[in-house]
Amino acid sequence: MKNKNPRILLTNDDGIYSKGIYALWEAMNEIGDVTVLAPNTEKSAVGHAVTISDPIRIEPCSRHGNFKGYAVNGTPADCVKIAIGSFLDKKPNIVISGINAGSNMGTNILYSGTVSAAAEGTMLGVPSIAFSLNTFNANNYELSKEVAIKMTKSVLDHGLPKGTLLNVNIPKCEISECNGYKITSQGDEYFLDDLEKREDPRGRIYYWMSGKIVNNDTSNEQDGYAIANNWVSVTPIQYKLTDHKFIDDLKSWKL
Amino acid sequence: MKNKNPRILLTNDDGIYSKGIYALWEAMNEIGDVTVLAPNTEKSAVGHAVTISDPIRIEPCSRHGNFKGYAVNGTPADCVKIAIGSFLDKKPNIVISGINAGSNMGTNILYSGTVSAAAEGTMLGVPSIAFSLNTFNANNYELSKEVAIKMTKSVLDHGLPKGTLLNVNIPKCEISECNGYKITSQGDEYFLDDLEKREDPRGRIYYWMSGKIVNNDTSNEQDGYAIANNWVSVTPIQYKLTDHKFIDDLKSWKL
Repeated sequence: MKNKNPRILLTNDDGIYSKGIYALWEAMNEIGDVTVLAPNTEKSAVGHAVTISDPIRIEPCSRHGNFKGYAVNGTPADCVKIAIGSFLDKKPNIVISGINAGSNMGTNILYSGTVSAAAEGTMLGVPSIAFSLNTFNANNYELSKEVAIKMTKSVLDHGLPKGTLLNVNIPKCEISECNGYKITSQGDEYFLDDLEKREDPRGRIYYWMSGKIVNNDTSNEQDGYAIANNWVSVTPIQYKLTDHKFIDDLKSWKL
Repeated sequence: MKNKNPRILLTNDDGIYSKGIYALWEAMNEIGDVTVLAPNTEKSAVGHAVTISDPIRIEPCSRHGNFKGYAVNGTPADCVKIAIGSFLDKKPNIVISGINAGSNMGTNILYSGTVSAAAEGTMLGVPSIAFSLNTFNANNYELSKEVAIKMTKSVLDHGLPKGTLLNVNIPKCEISECNGYKITSQGDEYFLDDLEKREDPRGRIYYWMSGKIVNNDTSNEQDGYAIANNWVSVTPIQYKLTDHKFIDDLKSWKL
C-alpha cells in the first residue's frame, strides 16, 4: 500500500446507528484511520440530495466497541461535502460508503444515497467506493467485510480515474459459496412503482409508495446477473451524462 | 404535431406556488391538456430522492387565472412516479419540468430536482424536458415561454431516443438579445462548497451550506458557454453510467 495509515472517511445512507456502517467501520479499522460522518437517521432513497434550506448540526456520537463518529442531520452527500470541505483537517485518502441494506444496481443507483455519497467524494477528487449487500436483513457481514477490505486496499494501491467511482454489490451468501469478483456494467434492473391508497384515522386519504424490483438484465456482464449468481459485482461508474450519439440528430431539428 | 391535444404532465422542484411553474403552465396551455402535480413546498437540491418512509398526500390546489393542480408532499421524482404510475388515467405524451429558478448545468445537474423529474419521466418511457432559467430573481418569462413552447412542440414532433431527456437552460436576457439555440454537452461547472458556522440563541453550533458556482468549461460546445453567451442551451442527457473505458484496467487488477 502507498499509505501506511490511510485516512478513511466513512459514511452511509442507513444512518450512523445502522448495522451496516458498524461492520464497515470494523473492517476499515484494519486498514487505516477512520473518521465517520453519517446521517443521524435513515436517509434511504435520498439520491444526490443536499441540504441548502435548513441549518445543519453535527453531533459527536459513540456506540459500543469504541465506535466514535459524527451524526449529521443531513443527507449522505451532505456528510461528504461537510467532511471534505470543512470538517476534516486533512483530505481523506478514500471515501467509503455503506454497507447498504439492499443492493444498489441498474437504474436504481440513481435513487441511492449510498452511491451518491461515493459520487460526491469522487467529484471532490477523492477515490470512492460504495458497498451494498443484497439483503434487507443481514445477520452476517463476514463476506462483506472481506470484500470491503480487499476493494479498499486495491483502490488505495491502484487509484481510480478522475471522475470514476466503484459501485460494489455483495451477494447474500457465505464466503465459501461466493464465486469471486466480476467486473460488471450497470444493468437494466429498475423499480416498478405502485401507490397504495389508505385512509387515516380522521378519514383523510394518503398513499404509500411501494413496488417491486424488476430485473431485465440480458447480459451476464451486468450487475444483476453477477449478484444472482453469487459473484461480487464491481461496476465503475461515471457522471458525464451527455448522450453524444443523439447530438447530430438533435442538430438536424434546426431549432 | 402528431397529437392534436397532447397530454402534458407538468412538475417542478420550486413547488406548485412558484412563479416558474405558473409561467410554464401558461405556455403549455397553448399546446395541450395540462395536468400539474408538483411539490407542495420548495424541494430544491433534492436530486433524484424519492419518498419511501413517509405517507404521501395529494391535495387539489388552485391559483389565479384558472390554474389548477395537485400539491404533493413529496419530491419532484415522486410527483412523476405517482402521476404516471397511478394518478393519471392515461399516460402523458410528455413530461415537462420547470421553469427552475437558476440554471442546471455541468456537474450540478446531479443535485437538481428539476432535471431528476424529467429523468423519472424518461425512465417511465415518456419523453421529458427540464427547463431552467439562469437567474434566481426572474421577473420576465417571455423568452422562457417561447423556448418552452418551441422545444415541447419539437419533442412531440420528433420524439426522443429511449432513455434520453433534454436539459434546456435559458439565458437571462430579452428575446431580442438571445442568439438562438445551441446543442451542447454537459459542462464542467460545479459548486464549490463552504460551510458557514453560526451559534443559535441557545449557544448551540449549527452550520449553513453555502458556496459558489465555479465554471471551468473549456469548450464552446458546453452548456455553461452557451448560457454565458446568451444562447439557449439544449443538452441531451442519459443515465447509463458505466465507465466502459475503465473496465479493462479494472480487470487487470485481478481481484
